[in-house]
Amino acid sequence: MSFETTATIASFGGKLLKLAHQAKTVPCQMKLNLYLPPTASASSPAPVLFYLAGLTCTGDNGAEKGFLQHKAAEKGIAVVYPDTSPRGLGIDGEDESYDFGSGAGFYVDATKEPYKGKYNMYSYITRELPETLFSHFKELDGSRVSITGHSMGGHGALTLFLKNPGMYKSVSAFAPISNPTNCQWGQKAFGGYFGDGDKGKWSEHDTCELLKGFKGDVDVLVDVGTGDNFYKQGQLRPEELEKVAKEAGKSVKVRYQDGYDHSYFFISTFAGDHVEHAAKYLLK
Amino acid sequence: MSFETTATIASFGGKLLKLAHQAKTVPCQMKLNLYLPPTASASSPAPVLFYLAGLTCTGDNGAEKGFLQHKAAEKGIAVVYPDTSPRGLGIDGEDESYDFGSGAGFYVDATKEPYKGKYNMYSYITRELPETLFSHFKELDGSRVSITGHSMGGHGALTLFLKNPGMYKSVSAFAPISNPTNCQWGQKAFGGYFGDGDKGKWSEHDTCELLKGFKGDVDVLVDVGTGDNFYKQGQLRPEELEKVAKEAGKSVKVRYQDGYDHSYFFISTFAGDHVEHAAKYLLK
Repeated sequence: MSFETTATIASFGGKLLKLAHQAKTVPCQMKLNLYLPPTASASSPAPVLFYLAGLTCTGDNGAEKGFLQHKAAEKGIAVVYPDTSPRGLGIDGEDESYDFGSGAGFYVDATKEPYKGKYNMYSYITRELPETLFSHFKELDGSRVSITGHSMGGHGALTLFLKNPGMYKSVSAFAPISNPTNCQWGQKAFGGYFGDGDKGKWSEHDTCELLKGFKGDVDVLVDVGTGDNFYKQGQLRPEELEKVAKEAGKSVKVRYQDGYDHSYFFISTFAGDHVEHAAKYLLK
Repeated sequence: MSFETTATIASFGGKLLKLAHQAKTVPCQMKLNLYLPPTASASSPAPVLFYLAGLTCTGDNGAEKGFLQHKAAEKGIAVVYPDTSPRGLGIDGEDESYDFGSGAGFYVDATKEPYKGKYNMYSYITRELPETLFSHFKELDGSRVSITGHSMGGHGALTLFLKNPGMYKSVSAFAPISNPTNCQWGQKAFGGYFGDGDKGKWSEHDTCELLKGFKGDVDVLVDVGTGDNFYKQGQLRPEELEKVAKEAGKSVKVRYQDGYDHSYFFISTFAGDHVEHAAKYLLK
């Protein structure tokens, strides 16, 4: 299914496309933003960085406030900003919480009713969206893809990377939910999407658990603000991520950024570093 | 009257302060954002760039989406993001239009009832706000101040600069309303704030008119997007600004940016250039 381009906006020498398409893995129209750097063309397709947003966000937040475009334009990297969940499915309770349902898809395929078969953000982000994008936009090089994200989207970036060796050239994250099976956000989401009976399924989407069994090398960049209230509340657990990485002999660099919070002011400050991190692998 | 700091947010190595204070020139509480670059201190106060926002905006839009902090941090320049009008005065019709009343103060002191004595954004921005800021924040160097702005705020930046020789070290503007006496936005605003009987007052707040009589040199940087619908509708009139500048022998550089619109995607793209322009004068 092809894309409708609802707006084309000049940004940092390239173009930000506001796109919509009728998805199959999730039963609704999905919106997203695609940034094409100035150098992207069919004869010289750009490598691609997926930016997965956090709770309550759409694909607009990162595009408007993340400032990834600034460095992406310089490096010649395209950026994809997907939505964070299906929308408007009419599921009872879908819009009631900020941290479950709409805006909170958690990048998993739900196995529990009434979300089963509908909240399939894992399949949408790893399969349907890239396939559709790369067949439609010849300016994109589907063989060079990296991933990053914020909070719930940081969880998404890390788990999608670890569950799909070779799919992404690199991964980084801003304030990721690193150990969702052991925090309130993750427990609510996994309980709602998987049920409480299948903790194995929970572990399949927990960065710390995945890292323990990961074969091969990683080079993960993570930034967390020390003034981040969600970090202080134990929703992010970067120390656990560091501990697991150390025990497993995996390279995970967690930078504790003094005084930074959980907002896009934090993301925009370090966005350049994360694009640089991706560029190391996308452009080599 | 002093400031209440409602939030302190780390951004690009510095701090964004969300401030509120009870103003006198306008009869209400005024909110604003103040960005302090990492180098600002009482012993080494930072020069200051005022960023005046456009119609419908508050001091938040520029701080969140303008990307001025990125270059301001690098250059050691503070940025002040004021609101665009008084708020909540209970004037009949105040909140009815996007282009008049709330969010549309036009940086003038109204002389027509019921706005007279209340909508005094000119006095607030040129006098009360800087005086209050510079007496309160020793990290700011009130002797080195520049000004910029977007759309209505571009009009504000240019007219405040031209009406107050020596007050600002430099001026620039993004898509300014350059000739408000000859466009719909300006005519509506000036008619409402000054009345239709005093066209002399109108001219006192029109960049093109002010430039004709301006003594001394200027070095004005203006960016306008060629895809800007308000430019196409004749609300901005940069050609008239160029014409007047040429006739008056004043240096006004208007850059027509191919395909850019009126949004913060446009502003963020060229924000660095405008901070550099201010830095030339603030740091010399």
